[in-house]
Amino acid sequence: MVDLSSKSPESRHEHWMAQALTLAGRGVGLASPNPTVGCVIVQDGRLIGTGFHEYERRDHAEVVALREAGELARGATAYVTLEPCSHYGRTGPCADALIAAGVGSVVVATADANPTVHGRGMERLRQAGIDVTVGILETSARRLNDAFAKYISTGFPYVTIKSAMTLDGRIAPPASSRIRGEIAWITGPESRQQVQLLRHSVDAVITGIGTVLSDDPLLTDRSGLPRRRPLLRIVLDSELRLPLESKLVQSAKDDLLVICTNPCLQTGAHASANSQIHEQRIAALAAAGVTVKQIIPDPGKTSPALPELLRQLGEMQITSVMVEAGSGVNASFLDAALVDRLFLFYAPSMLGADGLPLIEKAPSQKPGVRDFTLHRYGSDFAFEGRLTDPWPVQSNLPDRLL
Amino acid sequence: MVDLSSKSPESRHEHWMAQALTLAGRGVGLASPNPTVGCVIVQDGRLIGTGFHEYERRDHAEVVALREAGELARGATAYVTLEPCSHYGRTGPCADALIAAGVGSVVVATADANPTVHGRGMERLRQAGIDVTVGILETSARRLNDAFAKYISTGFPYVTIKSAMTLDGRIAPPASSRIRGEIAWITGPESRQQVQLLRHSVDAVITGIGTVLSDDPLLTDRSGLPRRRPLLRIVLDSELRLPLESKLVQSAKDDLLVICTNPCLQTGAHASANSQIHEQRIAALAAAGVTVKQIIPDPGKTSPALPELLRQLGEMQITSVMVEAGSGVNASFLDAALVDRLFLFYAPSMLGADGLPLIEKAPSQKPGVRDFTLHRYGSDFAFEGRLTDPWPVQSNLPDRLL
Repeated sequence: MVDLSSKSPESRHEHWMAQALTLAGRGVGLASPNPTVGCVIVQDGRLIGTGFHEYERRDHAEVVALREAGELARGATAYVTLEPCSHYGRTGPCADALIAAGVGSVVVATADANPTVHGRGMERLRQAGIDVTVGILETSARRLNDAFAKYISTGFPYVTIKSAMTLDGRIAPPASSRIRGEIAWITGPESRQQVQLLRHSVDAVITGIGTVLSDDPLLTDRSGLPRRRPLLRIVLDSELRLPLESKLVQSAKDDLLVICTNPCLQTGAHASANSQIHEQRIAALAAAGVTVKQIIPDPGKTSPALPELLRQLGEMQITSVMVEAGSGVNASFLDAALVDRLFLFYAPSMLGADGLPLIEKAPSQKPGVRDFTLHRYGSDFAFEGRLTDPWPVQSNLPDRLL
Repeated sequence: MVDLSSKSPESRHEHWMAQALTLAGRGVGLASPNPTVGCVIVQDGRLIGTGFHEYERRDHAEVVALREAGELARGATAYVTLEPCSHYGRTGPCADALIAAGVGSVVVATADANPTVHGRGMERLRQAGIDVTVGILETSARRLNDAFAKYISTGFPYVTIKSAMTLDGRIAPPASSRIRGEIAWITGPESRQQVQLLRHSVDAVITGIGTVLSDDPLLTDRSGLPRRRPLLRIVLDSELRLPLESKLVQSAKDDLLVICTNPCLQTGAHASANSQIHEQRIAALAAAGVTVKQIIPDPGKTSPALPELLRQLGEMQITSVMVEAGSGVNASFLDAALVDRLFLFYAPSMLGADGLPLIEKAPSQKPGVRDFTLHRYGSDFAFEGRLTDPWPVQSNLPDRLL
């Protein structure tokens, strides 16, 4: 027990909310497609209940914490990292559970991400006479659920471009100086461990066939942390060139999705011969446990239409994707303004103008970075820049107490 | 007066040394070719004397501070950011001045940078019965005089490459999309203000004729801070193409040095005609207040030999230079392993593979970054990486007290 009696109400709130956020972090990889939520219940400065949400366990964080608190919850304060829900879904409304348990006050980090229910949970608590405070460590709470916020309000997954570069912006040595299938690491082990944590935090990774053919990557989540659904590995491979002997195919366990275009629609005279080869390849990949999807290119393009790909991934309850690809795929996502976040690792070295660039061509619209954070990983650093804000402004909150 | 009585001796020392370092910072631009040094004298927790070194005022920081302290210096503690000197130069030894003033103890941030006198000043103080502590805020104190440390131990100026880039390592849009003489700023005003402070901290800037022809830069110190010697602006211009109407020439006031190679030595049959044109150009530049120096290229090269350039700059008491140039000059300095520090600004934007690269080709030896600092300037960030350490290891210090 920590003596917080001399602290201001705000710093007491922050103390407990930080614990709720730490708990919420334990749900990363386990809560998706739901948000990651943590809850702590405090009575007279003592922690009496804790909980976080895991999709498989069904119960929301508040319910888990209330169960642990039992009768002690009466008159206590519940700290929740996301506004308690007010609707019936797979579980009953958490707002009702808090009311039924008789908690005296509820402190919320951020209102709900879904604009249509935003504020309703808090309203319900207030109508039941519970004192509600909102906005404690709100920024941290929102960052934890940026992907959920975008997914729930648009149906599209949250898109991060991750890349590792030298100081002069080169993602790899020139092709001529590389050995096929041998990855020349640019960044150090600490950065690469962080990449594993990033993979752990997303539902899917996307790469291009060029990267597969030159680097033969595995693209698995090797963070060692538990995850509910396997990381979906996606290869953009218009002409189905993915080798059956690639590490991706060899390790496929219903977690590898190959996106091709439909050559029948493109090649005119050669259509039937191509279609046949295409079908044979799809059959071989299917036999190896790989799913192939055809996505038609946008008019005038040869690669799969990315908005349609993201739409279909959203339908599959993929709430977040990380693009780990080469200059061409990076440029396509940026040019289509589909990127929510950049996570760029820089190693303190240089490769010169021959090295592969981060993006092939500049996006037609300048990507606007709203805010960014700098990280250090061993001898490298990283730039984490947010290009979008998927959260609603706090319009539905009549009386923000802090 | 700050109440430091409850603090540990080390944190008291750090408190006062931080003030001495702030004072030393006021000598930036005024002390070169001497080091920037600050001194505070403290008696019973009270500040009784302050000083910093300016070359023109001759007196070293300790002497200025002792003069202010007067009789109160007896038994006091002197905090000095650099080991007090023990030799006769333009002034008498500061160690003797401290002894004569009767100070009780001396706290030194770092031993001298010059390996031949390193430790002697402290030895002299100790022999006089003064208590000497060394190593308080040593890293900060060393960073302030990295340039002096290299200059005094090698005779060569300290070399910083400064550049401003997009996240993908592009220092400018492709030449085709630029308007001659119009600089398309990549970074924001806060970064550009920091560039002025960097220029203020060095004795010379070096650029290439390519940058002059495309950007027509001014390259002056517009920090608004006082400096003893004008910032020397140097243009690497093998064939003397510098236009008389360029901003550099138009603003020349004995602060513009043009480095050409000697065409007589290169062009064989055309030697005499070229020499004549060359001499005419030199005369026109001289009339405009520009100094021209010929530096012969290294065998097999066409651009001036950079080690010889740096040697000659050292002879001119230029202790530090900042390279603000294009891909070719940046690559030449890196390839010749002449760079001590990188100061790279990154703006949160991208220019794509057409943009001008930071360096034309990778250096033949990988530049080893010893340590780096990340800075934020408005919406930009900067990587400050040290490739060398010009300071001696602390071998001459028999009893390092902390």
